[in-house]
Amino acid sequence: MSDSPARTAPAEGPRLVAEPHKDGVDAAVAAARRVIDALLHTGDGTGADMEEIAGRLDAVADGLTEGAPALRERLAEMWRGEGVTRHDPVTGPENALAPPLTLRGLEDGSVEGVVTLGLPYQGPPGHVHGGISALLLDHTLGVANHWGGTSGMTAELTLRYLRPTPLFEPLTVTGRQVSVDGRRIRTVGEITAGGTARVTAEGLFIAKQLPRPS
Amino acid sequence: MSDSPARTAPAEGPRLVAEPHKDGVDAAVAAARRVIDALLHTGDGTGADMEEIAGRLDAVADGLTEGAPALRERLAEMWRGEGVTRHDPVTGPENALAPPLTLRGLEDGSVEGVVTLGLPYQGPPGHVHGGISALLLDHTLGVANHWGGTSGMTAELTLRYLRPTPLFEPLTVTGRQVSVDGRRIRTVGEITAGGTARVTAEGLFIAKQLPRPS
Repeated sequence: MSDSPARTAPAEGPRLVAEPHKDGVDAAVAAARRVIDALLHTGDGTGADMEEIAGRLDAVADGLTEGAPALRERLAEMWRGEGVTRHDPVTGPENALAPPLTLRGLEDGSVEGVVTLGLPYQGPPGHVHGGISALLLDHTLGVANHWGGTSGMTAELTLRYLRPTPLFEPLTVTGRQVSVDGRRIRTVGEITAGGTARVTAEGLFIAKQLPRPS
Repeated sequence: MSDSPARTAPAEGPRLVAEPHKDGVDAAVAAARRVIDALLHTGDGTGADMEEIAGRLDAVADGLTEGAPALRERLAEMWRGEGVTRHDPVTGPENALAPPLTLRGLEDGSVEGVVTLGLPYQGPPGHVHGGISALLLDHTLGVANHWGGTSGMTAELTLRYLRPTPLFEPLTVTGRQVSVDGRRIRTVGEITAGGTARVTAEGLFIAKQLPRPS
């Protein structure tokens, strides 16, 4: 996939990850992402009253925690039903850690998404943390397996970092199931920026799933 | 390292990552982590007024953004000085994505930290996302290189997922520099839970650094 042309527009094709809602918890999570980013942009030393801000955030957390279901109940609820998850740290509209990455299924059997990452995802100066690239690729390979027809759990993942991956620029993340041999699934993927491959991934997955909580 | 005894108490040894402050931006970030977690614990359907919560979080983000320095200025500022970073997504007290993981240097040359992960880090039901394990290990191997005396950038990282890694239980994350051959650094690491190896990592690093922004 390394020689694919630069593509920064979102791919056409069915959306393979949860659609964020404009309201409900998804809206609050979108706002929480803005807070995470703004805290990193601000840091100390601008005169912002961080004690007051900590108090306001703690009040939000306290209110939510008071009304939250028991963990066991919530775990069962979040895994109920079929379809893609709403809460994973890569694509989940309910998870403020997720950029989020939107992945679509292409006719050639691959999956693709475009995402621009900011300060929370920084490793080396101005560039994406190598572990964040691994996180995006591991998840994308998993979604590629789903799109390919046979899902599984990661058994082995090898990442090659070819060039630094920039922050603040559109990144194209792709994945493609290569083979299914019994329960062994092989899947590859890549992150490109400006048409240039930055990180490649090769994964071995085993076709099994952990039981859902009930 | 697979046959090391179960250890869930924090390692003794010098702290290799930034110490969080009780006040300033670190306190606000700690509160933001509570918000991220509480939003995932709550979800939709509990009757929480998410529109009101989104409004309160947006107001925090708006206020911070208004007073934040220009991005270029902030990037230069955050990379000024020596020592470990305060803003990475694994250990950074200024980054709400970071659990955070505290790593210490041991006398045998390895680094070690203990962390318990909650819902934001979930992949399979009740277990840590494979990409999050990759993120923790990539960073830990980087810190192990620092402790070993020769730092670099990740060139290749191989992860082997031996058993599922549980949420809500103490995980011990270790790393150790194995060899330095010219600019090629080899480093290994592991995540254990309950004394059992869950994920292992082997990394090849190249001794170079990206320039700091100025």
